Amino acid sequence: MLGENERVLQQLFSPSVLHTLDLIGIFVFAISGALLAVRKNFDVFGIAVLAEVTALGGGLFRDLVIGAVPPAAFTDLGYFVTPLLATGLVFFLHPHVERIQTGVNVFDAAGLGLFCVVGTVKAHDYGLGLTASACLGLTTAVGGGVLRDVLANEVPSLLRWDRDLYAVPAVVGATMVALCIRFDALTPFTSVLAVITAFVLRLCAMRYHWRAPRAWHRRSAVVEE
Amino acid sequence: MLGENERVLQQLFSPSVLHTLDLIGIFVFAISGALLAVRKNFDVFGIAVLAEVTALGGGLFRDLVIGAVPPAAFTDLGYFVTPLLATGLVFFLHPHVERIQTGVNVFDAAGLGLFCVVGTVKAHDYGLGLTASACLGLTTAVGGGVLRDVLANEVPSLLRWDRDLYAVPAVVGATMVALCIRFDALTPFTSVLAVITAFVLRLCAMRYHWRAPRAWHRRSAVVEE
Amino acid sequence: MLGENERVLQQLFSPSVLHTLDLIGIFVFAISGALLAVRKNFDVFGIAVLAEVTALGGGLFRDLVIGAVPPAAFTDLGYFVTPLLATGLVFFLHPHVERIQTGVNVFDAAGLGLFCVVGTVKAHDYGLGLTASACLGLTTAVGGGVLRDVLANEVPSLLRWDRDLYAVPAVVGATMVALCIRFDALTPFTSVLAVITAFVLRLCAMRYHWRAPRAWHRRSAVVEE
Repeated sequence: MLGENERVLQQLFSPSVLHTLDLIGIFVFAISGALLAVRKNFDVFGIAVLAEVTALGGGLFRDLVIGAVPPAAFTDLGYFVTPLLATGLVFFLHPHVERIQTGVNVFDAAGLGLFCVVGTVKAHDYGLGLTASACLGLTTAVGGGVLRDVLANEVPSLLRWDRDLYAVPAVVGATMVALCIRFDALTPFTSVLAVITAFVLRLCAMRYHWRAPRAWHRRSAVVEE
Repeated sequence: MLGENERVLQQLFSPSVLHTLDLIGIFVFAISGALLAVRKNFDVFGIAVLAEVTALGGGLFRDLVIGAVPPAAFTDLGYFVTPLLATGLVFFLHPHVERIQTGVNVFDAAGLGLFCVVGTVKAHDYGLGLTASACLGLTTAVGGGVLRDVLANEVPSLLRWDRDLYAVPAVVGATMVALCIRFDALTPFTSVLAVITAFVLRLCAMRYHWRAPRAWHRRSAVVEE
Repeated sequence: MLGENERVLQQLFSPSVLHTLDLIGIFVFAISGALLAVRKNFDVFGIAVLAEVTALGGGLFRDLVIGAVPPAAFTDLGYFVTPLLATGLVFFLHPHVERIQTGVNVFDAAGLGLFCVVGTVKAHDYGLGLTASACLGLTTAVGGGVLRDVLANEVPSLLRWDRDLYAVPAVVGATMVALCIRFDALTPFTSVLAVITAFVLRLCAMRYHWRAPRAWHRRSAVVEE
C-alpha cells in the first residue's frame, strides 16, 4: 500500500508534473501582479509588465545569484507566455477575478509553498550551502511580490506588520527541505510534505490573521511615517 | 544605385558608428534621468547617480541576464563618462535643457529605437531564443527609465496609463529584429529599418497622444489609490 | 620604528582581521536598516529583511557584476547571521539603539570607508579597469543603503540634497585605492589610509553638515514635487 503511494507520489513529482506545478505557481503570482496593476490604474502594458515581474522576478534573482544564466525565465517560453495569459484574464474579467480573491489567495499560497521548495532544491543543486539554499528558496518565493510592490511604488506587503504572515510559511518550507537534504531524506514524499506544510501554514495565517510582532516598546515610541 | 545605398548603410552601421549611436542613446537617456533628478530637487551627486542609472541600467540588466560579465557599462569608459557630461550640462543649463524638452524627447525616442534593436541582437548573439531576445531588447530599452523612476520614488511612467505609448514602439522594433533573424534577413538595412520604425512610432505616440487601454469595466470599478 | 609600524599594519590587514572588519561593517549597516524598519513600523521579519538587504545589497550587486557567483553573501554564513544579530538587538533594544544614534553613525562611516576600499580592490582583482573598479567600490559602499530606502518606499537619502555628504567620502576612498593600484602603491598602509580618509571625511561631513550643491538657478525654477 505504501509502495503504491510512493509510486503515485513519484509520478506526481516527475519533471513534467513539476513543470506544470511551476507554471501554475507562475500563473497565480502573475494574477496577483495584474490585479495590483489594475488597482493602481495602469494600462494594459503596465498590467503585463507587473504580471511578468511578479511571476518571474523571484526565480530570476535566484538564477542570477547561482549563476544559472541565461535564467529559466528567458529560456522557457512557457514561463514568458503564462503571465500574458494571466494579464488577458485580468484585463477582461478583473471584477470577477477580484470577486474570487479567496481562490486567488489559495493558489498564491500554493505557489508560495511550491516556489520555496523548488528554489531551495535548485540552489543546493548549484552548490550553495544549506542555509544559503534555504534563504534563496525563501527569496524565490517572496522576491516577485517584493518587486511587484516596489514597481507599484508601495511598501512591500512582505514587510508590513498589518499583513498576515507570508514569509514564515516559506521559511518553514525551505528549512524543511534544507533539513531533509542534510539528513539525506529528500524524496518526492518529503518534498511534497514541505510544499503542503508551507501551503497549509499560509492558509492558516490568512484564516486566523496571524501576525508577527513589531519591535519591543513599539507602543511607547514615536512613530515617524 | 541600390548597391550604393547598401554601401552607405553598411558604413552607417559599422562598429564605430554603432558605438557612436550607442553613446548618443546613453547621452539622451542620461539627460532624462538628470532632468528628473533636478525636478526632484536632488543634489549634484544625486543627479549624476540618476543619470548613470537611467543611461546604463537597461544594458546592465541585459548583460547580467545573458552572462556577459563584467557588463559593457563597466568595461567601456565612454559608457561611464557620457552620463557625467549629461549631468554637467543639466546642472549648469537645466532651464535651457527643459525648454528644449521636445528635442530631448526626440533624442530619447531615437535612443529607445536604437537600444531595443541592439539589445535584441546582443541577446540573440549570446544564445537566447527569439522571443526571449525580443523581450530582453525591450528590457534594454525601457529598463533604465524604470530604474530611474523607482530610485526617484515615483510610479514608473512606463506603467502609467496617462503617458503616451512607450513600450509598444520598442516591442515593435524588437519583434521586427527577431523576425528578421528568424528569416535570415538581418542586414544593416533591416536593422536600421527597425530602429527607424520604433523611432517614428514613438514620435507619433507623442504627437498624437496614443494611449493604451486600461482594464475592461475600469469605469465601474472602484479605484484604490 | 617604521618597520615595526609596517608589521603591525600588516597584521592589522591580514585576511582574518579583514573578515572581522567586514563583519563589523555589515553589522552597522544592518543596524541602520533595522532602525529604518522600526521607524516604518515593520514587523520583525520586515526588520530582518531590511537589515539583510542593507548589509549585503551592495556587495551582492558588486559580485553579480564581476561574475563572482555565488556571491560572498550566500557562501559565508557569517555574512548571513550578522544582520540577524543586528535585528535581534534593534528589536529588543531599539530606543536605546536610537539614543546612541551618533555611535551608530560613526560605525556606519567606518563601514562606508571599509566597503569602498574592499569593493574597489575586489573589482580590480576580477579584471575590471581602474575607473570601473572605483565605481564598483562606491556602489558596494552605498548600494545597500539605496536598496534599503527603495524597499522602505522612500527617496534614497544618498540622492537627497538635504542630507550630509555620503557619496563623496566613498568616492575619495575608492579613487585613492584606484590611484594606488595605478602606481603600484597598494599596500596595507595605503589601504588603511584610504579607509581612514573616507571615514574621517564622512565624520566631518556629519559634524559640519557639508552638503552638495543643487542645480544652478535652482532658486528661480519652479520645483515640481
